Amino acid sequence: MATTALPEASFADAFPCSAKVHVEGPHGVRVPMREITLADSPDGTPNAPFRVYDTSGPQGHDVHEGLPALREAWIAARGVTAHPERDQALGVAMPEGLRRTVLRGTGTVTQMHYAKRGEITPEMEFVALREGLPAEFVRSEVARGRAIIPANINHPELEPMIIGRGFHVKINANIGNSAVVSSIEEEVEKLRWSTLWGADTVMDLSTGKDIHETRQWILRNSAVPIGTVPIYQALEKVDGIAEDLTWEVYRDTLIEQAEQGVDYFTVHAGVLLPYIPMTARRMTGIVSRGGSIIAKWCLAHHKESFLYTHFREICEIMAAYDVSFSLGDGLRPGSIADANDEAQFAELKTQGELTSIAWEHDVQVMNEGPGHVPMHLIKENMEKQLEWCHEAPFYTLGPLTTDIAPGYDHITSAIGAAMIGWYGTAMLCYVTPKEHLGLPNRDDVKTGVITYKIAAHAADLAKGHPRAQQRDDALSKARFEFRWRDQFHLALDPQTAMAYHDETLPAEGAKVAHFCSMCGPKFCSMRISQDIRDAAKLAEAEQGMAAKAAEFRTSGGEIYR
Amino acid sequence: MATTALPEASFADAFPCSAKVHVEGPHGVRVPMREITLADSPDGTPNAPFRVYDTSGPQGHDVHEGLPALREAWIAARGVTAHPERDQALGVAMPEGLRRTVLRGTGTVTQMHYAKRGEITPEMEFVALREGLPAEFVRSEVARGRAIIPANINHPELEPMIIGRGFHVKINANIGNSAVVSSIEEEVEKLRWSTLWGADTVMDLSTGKDIHETRQWILRNSAVPIGTVPIYQALEKVDGIAEDLTWEVYRDTLIEQAEQGVDYFTVHAGVLLPYIPMTARRMTGIVSRGGSIIAKWCLAHHKESFLYTHFREICEIMAAYDVSFSLGDGLRPGSIADANDEAQFAELKTQGELTSIAWEHDVQVMNEGPGHVPMHLIKENMEKQLEWCHEAPFYTLGPLTTDIAPGYDHITSAIGAAMIGWYGTAMLCYVTPKEHLGLPNRDDVKTGVITYKIAAHAADLAKGHPRAQQRDDALSKARFEFRWRDQFHLALDPQTAMAYHDETLPAEGAKVAHFCSMCGPKFCSMRISQDIRDAAKLAEAEQGMAAKAAEFRTSGGEIYR
Repeated sequence: MATTALPEASFADAFPCSAKVHVEGPHGVRVPMREITLADSPDGTPNAPFRVYDTSGPQGHDVHEGLPALREAWIAARGVTAHPERDQALGVAMPEGLRRTVLRGTGTVTQMHYAKRGEITPEMEFVALREGLPAEFVRSEVARGRAIIPANINHPELEPMIIGRGFHVKINANIGNSAVVSSIEEEVEKLRWSTLWGADTVMDLSTGKDIHETRQWILRNSAVPIGTVPIYQALEKVDGIAEDLTWEVYRDTLIEQAEQGVDYFTVHAGVLLPYIPMTARRMTGIVSRGGSIIAKWCLAHHKESFLYTHFREICEIMAAYDVSFSLGDGLRPGSIADANDEAQFAELKTQGELTSIAWEHDVQVMNEGPGHVPMHLIKENMEKQLEWCHEAPFYTLGPLTTDIAPGYDHITSAIGAAMIGWYGTAMLCYVTPKEHLGLPNRDDVKTGVITYKIAAHAADLAKGHPRAQQRDDALSKARFEFRWRDQFHLALDPQTAMAYHDETLPAEGAKVAHFCSMCGPKFCSMRISQDIRDAAKLAEAEQGMAAKAAEFRTSGGEIYR
Repeated sequence: MATTALPEASFADAFPCSAKVHVEGPHGVRVPMREITLADSPDGTPNAPFRVYDTSGPQGHDVHEGLPALREAWIAARGVTAHPERDQALGVAMPEGLRRTVLRGTGTVTQMHYAKRGEITPEMEFVALREGLPAEFVRSEVARGRAIIPANINHPELEPMIIGRGFHVKINANIGNSAVVSSIEEEVEKLRWSTLWGADTVMDLSTGKDIHETRQWILRNSAVPIGTVPIYQALEKVDGIAEDLTWEVYRDTLIEQAEQGVDYFTVHAGVLLPYIPMTARRMTGIVSRGGSIIAKWCLAHHKESFLYTHFREICEIMAAYDVSFSLGDGLRPGSIADANDEAQFAELKTQGELTSIAWEHDVQVMNEGPGHVPMHLIKENMEKQLEWCHEAPFYTLGPLTTDIAPGYDHITSAIGAAMIGWYGTAMLCYVTPKEHLGLPNRDDVKTGVITYKIAAHAADLAKGHPRAQQRDDALSKARFEFRWRDQFHLALDPQTAMAYHDETLPAEGAKVAHFCSMCGPKFCSMRISQDIRDAAKLAEAEQGMAAKAAEFRTSGGEIYR
């Protein structure tokens, strides 16, 4: 649990015996995968290299140059126009390599727009190969709003990914400086670090100074979709006085961020004036930053939220860049006591209403969800979201299944996250051990990401995603065959697995030993089990004993009679 | 995740602002609780001290003297006789303070025996106060086999606890030296350490030298029930050759351990000869050490297991000391691929048969369960166990919900453990980060225990245990009121929570600050939320706005029409 010196975000260090390979597809699509080389089985049978989904992005690029513009030609082929006059609007001095000319759609340029027209975009082809599913399935899921491909036309560095319950469950990692600590360099490094370990998207929740500049650095170096909460920057513009926020300040912020290339915006448009009193008797009131800012504005002006009253204008902006909505849950419960209450569900219903409006504009939408919810109340969240929000993808924070373990909320929440992922949630927002206590450092980010990869994978297994169990099988086979190195290499975190093993049995020989430190050679069940299989003339035993077993069962299966 | 220097197993260090208090009951019963002192709320309202279940045992005793013999008089009042001639049988030189005269029941002396006769024992009174439930309920659950109170008459140091699905979900921590590493001192310290953090029972799985002596030290210093797997020691007696095991060697081992005071025995009597071939095509064969030893014996002799053929004699031994059965799951799945297979369920059915036989002898029983099980297959385990094993308490290892995260199996398994606890499992066997990789050190033991306290508490919440949510509410109230210290003190692990907070905001002033490092003062939703509550003339707002809300909902809840 303590802070340790971790290696740099190096693909080679993180994943020994792995190589980045590319799967070729139509339209020049090349999908990155990580290929793990495996040793032969003890009987000499070779084990095929194992490929896993890879989020680490192109490696070896200078952060001052940014990543290659993978999608440039795909985007240029659409109805987009360049707006070099807007480049200044970014208002920050950037290294040449991190500049991009601002693009805007001449009309709607969203993935949903093309999907509804029956068009399979290169992004959809990319995603289909990445998921191992037909491109037409990808298109139809995007068309009906059950999945989104967050992919701003100003973020050409993106390797497209999809969020929807018919696909792998995804995870999001939050980064971002606050008024209290951290720098741009740290945030870019956190981005690289979190995607190295498996973050599918990253939210930049910066609230301090230089948030515009920080975001530019992050976007130009990110192969995953970047999400933001634009109200944070808008609030900075009015010196932190929520009451001074206006629609115009907010609108301009949306446009600036869309021009930079942000792929999805959290918009708390479901926090309505009449819902605010519903939170007054709560154990923990409003715990969403965005939600509380909007609530404060609404109360101060005694007016409906401008996010709600200007929602169609927001949709129009987002349609011109293909920014996706992440409809915020500003009234999510912040404690077990407040789970599934009136305020939470009132907002969820409004999210459903807003989802339909966004879809009228062909804007892609996901819905954010809780929060703190005990296990027996989790399913209701999923059911209501599916029903009220018309099967738009659900994107939840945990949920945390108890409040009593600050310092371990990656675990309290992984329990809820795995369950709600199984029930149908498409993306899980990670929680680090520092939740409720402080800002995550590199160790915490890694712990949060790995923990959420576990939750997402456990959900994929339970959902029956066709590819999921292959990795469990490959790892368990390696374990049973005492291929220690393969077991490490197939693990979500090879470094930690190997370090733990070496702590007790550091000798090189122990990595090929047919036992381990837990039981020692004499008690090794795996070895005995293999002895049984190998030595006991299995075929004979199977035949002879199967007959006996049948007889035994026929006779009632009891010896005590 | 790294090894850090941890403080000694000190109650005062672990739980600042906590004191041990005792709740008095009938028969001189005094039940320990940990009482946490809380600060006043910001408005001056006092917060009552909060009491939590306490497993840490009497503090400040010299390990060479052992703990006070709390149950001595209760046991003496039963039909027991002293057998000083058997003291030698322990065969180990012990400090005077760690010697106890061996007792044996003149007849059956089990808690189930008294419960069936309608008698409420002091142990049941103790448990009732500890759980906050009526003593008669405790008795009736024990009488019908739905709960057990593992309490060997040779373990007078025990503070009784109950395992059953009508009560708090319990957790077990495994300790024990192996042939490869660790010493007696380390094992006693692991016992103290694991119970300090919340282990309800401890299994001593030692397999190396001096296991008898180690166990004597552990028992005399343990206020929690101690479980063992006697076949391990029996195997040591035949120099590790499974084929050389005999009923006589095993029987003598059972008696020796019963005389020492072991409270429950894992007995793999459900591993039958006809089931062994069912494991041949498994991904990971037999992963239970006990199961594989028995399987090897059965195959070598081509005979039914002596544990099964001598099961009634085992019951007779256990009845005379009140040792409880933990019927082992020797064929539990060791990988996702093997979950819920024929071999596993064949053994479970036999466990049910054996449960009924044990009950005929008034011997208390729980059933061990898996293992590795994906989320969607967990419920079936619970349902079959309840049905086939007649509602005897279920005691599971995890289950691990995926195989792909060695180094993080406390987390892969906490997901499954929380769920199966909610479904009705009575005790969860912890899994540490070192599972599959090495022997746990002190850090790992603590991480395993805290992780499983989370799973057990999440399950208690979901089951609706009447006391469970009180702690969540107390902690969340402290959080909302920025009573930082109270938030730490109410946490499962105050040390870690405080250390994480101090990492970002170490100043003493920050612990009374009305914000934290995550958002900084300007973005603090909790503060805004309190501002809303405090300043916005709440009553007025509530009345006025509630009316508006009603009107709004009546009018269809939409502004876009």
